[in-house]
Amino acid sequence: MEAELKEMLNDLENLKRSLPDPSLHSSIDELQLRVQHLTDLAKSAPVRRSKVKDMSAEVVDSNPYSRLMALQRMGIVANYERIREFSVAIVGIGGVGSVAAEMLTRCGVGRLLLYDYDKVELANMNRLFFRPEQVGMTKTDAAVQTLSDINPDVVLEAINLMNSPNGVGSELDLSYTLNITTVEGFETFMCSLKNKTFRPEKEGNGVDLVLSCVDNYEARMVVNQACNELNQTWMESGVSEDAVSGHIQLLIPGETACFACVPPLVVASGVDERTLKREGVCAASLPTTMGVVAGLLVQNTLKYLLKFGHVSRYLGYNALKDYFPTMEMKPNPQCPNAACLERQKEYILAKPAREAEAKAKMEAEALPTTETPLHADNEWNISVVDDSLPEGSSSQSSDTLPQGLVHELPAAEEYKHASTVEQPASSADDLDELRRQLEALNAV
Amino acid sequence: MEAELKEMLNDLENLKRSLPDPSLHSSIDELQLRVQHLTDLAKSAPVRRSKVKDMSAEVVDSNPYSRLMALQRMGIVANYERIREFSVAIVGIGGVGSVAAEMLTRCGVGRLLLYDYDKVELANMNRLFFRPEQVGMTKTDAAVQTLSDINPDVVLEAINLMNSPNGVGSELDLSYTLNITTVEGFETFMCSLKNKTFRPEKEGNGVDLVLSCVDNYEARMVVNQACNELNQTWMESGVSEDAVSGHIQLLIPGETACFACVPPLVVASGVDERTLKREGVCAASLPTTMGVVAGLLVQNTLKYLLKFGHVSRYLGYNALKDYFPTMEMKPNPQCPNAACLERQKEYILAKPAREAEAKAKMEAEALPTTETPLHADNEWNISVVDDSLPEGSSSQSSDTLPQGLVHELPAAEEYKHASTVEQPASSADDLDELRRQLEALNAV
Repeated sequence: MEAELKEMLNDLENLKRSLPDPSLHSSIDELQLRVQHLTDLAKSAPVRRSKVKDMSAEVVDSNPYSRLMALQRMGIVANYERIREFSVAIVGIGGVGSVAAEMLTRCGVGRLLLYDYDKVELANMNRLFFRPEQVGMTKTDAAVQTLSDINPDVVLEAINLMNSPNGVGSELDLSYTLNITTVEGFETFMCSLKNKTFRPEKEGNGVDLVLSCVDNYEARMVVNQACNELNQTWMESGVSEDAVSGHIQLLIPGETACFACVPPLVVASGVDERTLKREGVCAASLPTTMGVVAGLLVQNTLKYLLKFGHVSRYLGYNALKDYFPTMEMKPNPQCPNAACLERQKEYILAKPAREAEAKAKMEAEALPTTETPLHADNEWNISVVDDSLPEGSSSQSSDTLPQGLVHELPAAEEYKHASTVEQPASSADDLDELRRQLEALNAV
Repeated sequence: MEAELKEMLNDLENLKRSLPDPSLHSSIDELQLRVQHLTDLAKSAPVRRSKVKDMSAEVVDSNPYSRLMALQRMGIVANYERIREFSVAIVGIGGVGSVAAEMLTRCGVGRLLLYDYDKVELANMNRLFFRPEQVGMTKTDAAVQTLSDINPDVVLEAINLMNSPNGVGSELDLSYTLNITTVEGFETFMCSLKNKTFRPEKEGNGVDLVLSCVDNYEARMVVNQACNELNQTWMESGVSEDAVSGHIQLLIPGETACFACVPPLVVASGVDERTLKREGVCAASLPTTMGVVAGLLVQNTLKYLLKFGHVSRYLGYNALKDYFPTMEMKPNPQCPNAACLERQKEYILAKPAREAEAKAKMEAEALPTTETPLHADNEWNISVVDDSLPEGSSSQSSDTLPQGLVHELPAAEEYKHASTVEQPASSADDLDELRRQLEALNAV
């Protein structure tokens, strides 16, 4: 608009010059003033903030990351800035997915992949994120519009069908948007998850985590299929039809139950779930329940990616009672999903390597470090008196027994010594083996 | 802007008429076309949706309330539309308050009163709601701007200092914004809570609930003081400095502990808490934790206002462990807050009236209603055989005893009969008495 107004100023100037009668100049002057005023108005329209190269912990009002970097000073996260290295895929940009996307964007995640085939409706206005002026846009386009204004540092990718023109700003044509439950859509979905252009050096797939925020069984089974095939860790989320309960769930192929291992008790049969709402009924929804579920989902995402706290395997939310059940679900050896069974087999085969690694890690942590006193200052002059060795006893281990008695089992110290000598070597071998297995798997 | 452009079209038309040389007309025509184009551009800018008179449950894409009204069909809420009658005050429009305001706005609450003295900074961008283009605006102005676009049906009031011009859109002058911890600010705060122009027929204060979303001890004590003086139920919320825990709490003066009954163990002393962040340190914050706390807060607000589910007295959120502790806190008879002690006394004095009311309610619910069969259809032709009356027994109550025996206590039926006759009258008297007490209290 500013360019248009500038051209208009020039046109008016030319007109003024070509006018024979100077008495008419004042009218033109007035018009020029008006155009100048409009230019000022247009300039006061929203401007984006500029990109930030490094996340600074500096405490100034103009630093969008100061409160996040403070997580390091508070001892919660070891290295917050690592968040810029991560790619997260969000499938379903509805009441939960859109809020999850906004939270990750404001946290400064590296890259977000967004999937949805639907468009924004006024009926979505009872949840957070979308605004009435976005009605009619595709949800992915509307999300990219809002999120890029909020944080230009995040790489945002609205995944549409292969070979389709980018739909941003163009006239709405839903045939370009991605429905992962179609054959073509599933292929595009899989390709986008494997794409490593964001971090070519990354092992495994191109994304670090997939968040499922869809509202139907069919789409969940598709996400499950893709993640089982790609050995991709993902998180499930859901909100009940009556809007007053929800859950999140962590799914690690082979290690935890997959979505097909323990299917829901009731699913739509013979009808397309998505058409149900068009028959005059619709599910209830609340911004509160969806906000809480999105918050719990992204909180666990941050804990998983930045390695702090405990990542919940399953966390429910009962809004009527403010009750939050948790549980763990082991994979089902009779799971109907073939890819899940393959991942289960791999997980069992990798057990010795995993155990060796855990042991090596535990021992590395147990190794004596340069000791520092627990309390550096000793205001009250407290000294510790060793009462384990009565005066005059031998300098040997306190486990020394009176003559004639022997230990039935080896002493704890001997056992520990034996294991520290043998285990590290073998566990290193196992780790190499594990890495080879992983690489072979990724090469397929 | 559209008005400006229309005036410009008129000016150009007048100019054309006054031009002696028709060869110059084409330049003016071109200018008119340009202005027309600019008008079209300006018209394509965001438009608000129009107000909705009644909340409809109709399932169409254009109905912003269909998913909320569905709560009635699902049996969760008896009358969702009552939400339009309620006024909620939100003190502190930061990471929790702004999201709480958005949730209530999207839920279609009747009226929101917003209090904050601060302005939007880039350092707030790691929480939901505010956008970078709002940096420099007061938080209340920015909130009114966003919320009125989202839902024009909600009455939004940014409370500024008395006699001050409304700051919306005007140059920033923080001296007009309301800091409730000043003497003048506290008076304005109290007046705004008592103001009943929204619902003149309402008993008590002008607001139904106060949500405290402030970030410091001093402001919490001020909200506590106001609510104790006004006998106003409120909810407290808070997030820890390390961003990984939070809580919400319901405070009913006299009935539950007030904020001064059980003060925090550590509070700022001798320094202004608000200046702490300017000394080069600041608290950490996360959009996830604040989103979860706001969601739990507004969920309990909805349960409280619309009378469904259980309203939590205290609910904590430990993000590292996904642990949600609950507890109840009774008022402290040694509370240092004089208004709290008064409310405690009233609560104890009203105990008999309260008990009578509860009894009457219980009995009213126990009264036999017109019975309908539990299972209307009887596919398997099951019939119930009465085995309590052996054939040939008298038609009297089954409590009839063999000759020579009497009941030591009156039979359950007699007792019930007696109480249903006597109790309603006395409890009605007590209720009237209670109402008189309340009115006398509000008149002070």
